[in-house]
Amino acid sequence: MARTIGSDGEKTEIAIRKAAASLMARHGYEAMSMRRLADEVGVQAAALYRYFPTKEELLFTLMREHMEALVAAWEAQRPAGGDPTARLAAFVENHIAFHIARRHSTHVSNMELRSLSPERLTVILKLRTAYEKELRAILREGAESGAFAVDDAGLTAMALIQMLTGVIVWFRPGERLSAAEVTQNYLSMTMRLVGATMREGGSACTRTR
Amino acid sequence: MARTIGSDGEKTEIAIRKAAASLMARHGYEAMSMRRLADEVGVQAAALYRYFPTKEELLFTLMREHMEALVAAWEAQRPAGGDPTARLAAFVENHIAFHIARRHSTHVSNMELRSLSPERLTVILKLRTAYEKELRAILREGAESGAFAVDDAGLTAMALIQMLTGVIVWFRPGERLSAAEVTQNYLSMTMRLVGATMREGGSACTRTR
Repeated sequence: MARTIGSDGEKTEIAIRKAAASLMARHGYEAMSMRRLADEVGVQAAALYRYFPTKEELLFTLMREHMEALVAAWEAQRPAGGDPTARLAAFVENHIAFHIARRHSTHVSNMELRSLSPERLTVILKLRTAYEKELRAILREGAESGAFAVDDAGLTAMALIQMLTGVIVWFRPGERLSAAEVTQNYLSMTMRLVGATMREGGSACTRTR
Repeated sequence: MARTIGSDGEKTEIAIRKAAASLMARHGYEAMSMRRLADEVGVQAAALYRYFPTKEELLFTLMREHMEALVAAWEAQRPAGGDPTARLAAFVENHIAFHIARRHSTHVSNMELRSLSPERLTVILKLRTAYEKELRAILREGAESGAFAVDDAGLTAMALIQMLTGVIVWFRPGERLSAAEVTQNYLSMTMRLVGATMREGGSACTRTR
């Protein structure tokens, strides 16, 4: 039988990636040793190197899979047609849900670009750019149709992504607000920021110039 | 003559802090060795330990001075009275200008809270809370006076701080936009996000419920 999802090999690889993301998020990539990681997973260091020949290969895999999963999640959630407001709302909801569920790999992805070789950095930055381009396209379309009041789609996309990803810094499940409440609140802020009219409740903004 | 600002000792200490922030921002706190830092500054390791007995002392000093300087900069810029909109604008301008000028120590401050001892972490978090409280107070005052449409001052403060600090991730002087243009754009986004009416140009927002 060929190796399938759920095989021991795949389970080990998933365990390695999970432990590596946690160790790197807590101590930083450079400070994490492969020996420490092997201990954490409960395998021999030699076994670890069968999955990931180098530590940088492991970092690159984490970052690539993080971005590929983010793009895939968005493609699954993206409304087929719909107005820019509905598409922006879907983008915000997916972005927050994805990052809340992957705090460690988000921290690693945001902090360790510095640790990639130039070739691998280029691959990750291309994935990021493709994802950000989706948001920029929504913002531009909304600005052109008059649904949004956006002065600079590129700048607004960066501002929104940083604001939305920032949720993971302080949000913890079970505290004052639920994930659904936080998402609703960030949706309202996003819609106000882009000058959109919310369909239910919220604020309406109109351009004055 | 007593040691004054500009003395050799003070110059060395400033050089150590600057080099440490740069090394930590590039490689992470745990990966930075005091020997490497001494080489970078051009002093003996023994000299380094006279200024900073431990590496964590150095990290703590960087983070404490970062936050103290941020609070001091805001106190110098804060309008004495004024409406919430003018105070929020001053907050945004000061926050962006401060962080653009201190990219390395901002990265260290954001990434290395994990590396502080519990006692020192408490000191830094108190400074952060005091700073964030200034923004929350402006937002609350604006919400109460009807100048802003803010649902949750705490959440909005976190969202704004992360959006504004995020500028340092992508902003580089001499590229497409000047610091003044970026600041103006972020000011417009901030004012829309909080549902404020801009006095000159920009967008006007009114609540619909």
